[in-house]
Amino acid sequence: MAQLADLEARVRVLEDIEAIKKLKAKYFRCLDKKLWNEIEGCFVEDAAADYGPDIKLQGRKAIIEFLKNTLGQEPFISAHQGHNPEIEITSDTAARGIWVLNDHLIIKTIATLNGWGYYEDEYVKENGEWKKKSTKITRILEEWLTTKR
Amino acid sequence: MAQLADLEARVRVLEDIEAIKKLKAKYFRCLDKKLWNEIEGCFVEDAAADYGPDIKLQGRKAIIEFLKNTLGQEPFISAHQGHNPEIEITSDTAARGIWVLNDHLIIKTIATLNGWGYYEDEYVKENGEWKKKSTKITRILEEWLTTKR
Amino acid sequence: MAQLADLEARVRVLEDIEAIKKLKAKYFRCLDKKLWNEIEGCFVEDAAADYGPDIKLQGRKAIIEFLKNTLGQEPFISAHQGHNPEIEITSDTAARGIWVLNDHLIIKTIATLNGWGYYEDEYVKENGEWKKKSTKITRILEEWLTTKR
Repeated sequence: MAQLADLEARVRVLEDIEAIKKLKAKYFRCLDKKLWNEIEGCFVEDAAADYGPDIKLQGRKAIIEFLKNTLGQEPFISAHQGHNPEIEITSDTAARGIWVLNDHLIIKTIATLNGWGYYEDEYVKENGEWKKKSTKITRILEEWLTTKR
Repeated sequence: MAQLADLEARVRVLEDIEAIKKLKAKYFRCLDKKLWNEIEGCFVEDAAADYGPDIKLQGRKAIIEFLKNTLGQEPFISAHQGHNPEIEITSDTAARGIWVLNDHLIIKTIATLNGWGYYEDEYVKENGEWKKKSTKITRILEEWLTTKR
Repeated sequence: MAQLADLEARVRVLEDIEAIKKLKAKYFRCLDKKLWNEIEGCFVEDAAADYGPDIKLQGRKAIIEFLKNTLGQEPFISAHQGHNPEIEITSDTAARGIWVLNDHLIIKTIATLNGWGYYEDEYVKENGEWKKKSTKITRILEEWLTTKR
C-alpha cells in the first residue's frame, strides 16, 4: 500500500494549502469585523508580526493588543483582502506563503488609505490546526486621501 | 479498500470546494458580462437571494429578473469580485461559504459605487453540479461618487 | 489498482489547478516587482500575448521586452490582481483559464489607471512545470485620473 500512502501525502498537501487559505480568510474577517476573541485562534502564542518599519510585534498577545488599539478604534473601518497566494508546504507542520495585500482603510474621520503590497507569512500546524507563526507586510504603494481642518 | 474510499472522500471534498469557487466565478462573470441565460445554471430553482435590507428575492426566476432590471440596464457597468472564501462542505450535497465582496458599479451616468462586504452563501449539489441555494450580502462600507445636475 | 490510478488522476487535476494559480501569482509578482529574469520561467518560448487591440506580441522574448519597456520604466508603479479563476485542465499537459483582472497603475507622473477586465489564458506543462502559452486581456472598464500641465 505504499502507493496509497504516497497519494495520501499529496492529498494532505492540497488540504493544507486550502486550510491555510481559510486561515488567512478568517484572519481578515476577524480583523474587519473586529472579532478580537476569534482572531486569537489564528496565531500561535509566540507569533511575530512585522506590519511596517516601525511596527514590529512579538507574541500573539502584543499583536492582538496592537490591532485592537488601531483598527479596533471607532470609527475605523477596514476592508482587507489577500490575493494570488503562493503557498509552499515545507514539512508536515510548517509552511510559508506570499500574498498580495490590498487594504482599504477609513481612519476615523481623518483619512482614507488605499494600500497595496505583499504579505510574507510563515505558518505552523499546532494540534492539527494551521496557525500564523510570522507575518510581514511590505507595501508597494499607498494612496492617501486626507482631510485638513 | 476502506482506506482508498476514505481518501476518495477527502479528494471529493477538495473537488467540491474548487467547483464552488468556479460556480462563484461563473456567477460574477455572467453578472458583469450580462449573460442572463448562462447565469440560470448557477441557481437551483427555489434559490433565495438577500441583496440588502430591501431586496429579498425568492426563486431563481425572481433573482434573474431583478438582476436584469438593475445591472442589465445600459449604461450600467459592474465589476464584481469575491475574495478569501471560507467554504465548508457540510454533506455530499450541501455546503456553505463566506466570501469577501468587492464591487465597483457605474450606475448609468448618475453614480459610481465602490462597495465592500460579505457574502454568506448556501450551495447544493443538483445532478452532480453545485448550485447556489441562497446568497446574502452584508455590506461593511459603501463609497459613492454621485453626479448632481 | 485501477481505482488508485483513477484517484491519482483526480488528485493530479487538483494539483495542476493549484500550480496554475501559483503560476499566475508568480507572473503578477514578477510584473509588479519588476523581476524580469524570474518572469521568463512563466512563459513557454513561443508564447503569445494579446494585451489589447494594438498590443499583440509573439514569443516570450517580445513579451518580456514589451513589459520591461512599459511597466519597467521608472516611476511606473503597478499592482496587478487576478481574481475568481475558472481553470479547466484539458489534458495532462494543457489547460485554459479565465481570470478577472484588476490592475492599478501609476503611469509615471502623468496618470493613474484603475482597470477591470478579463484574462483568457492557455497553459502548457513543459518538463513538469506549468507555463503560459497564451494570454489575452479584454477590458470592461478603465478609470483614468490624468494630470494636465
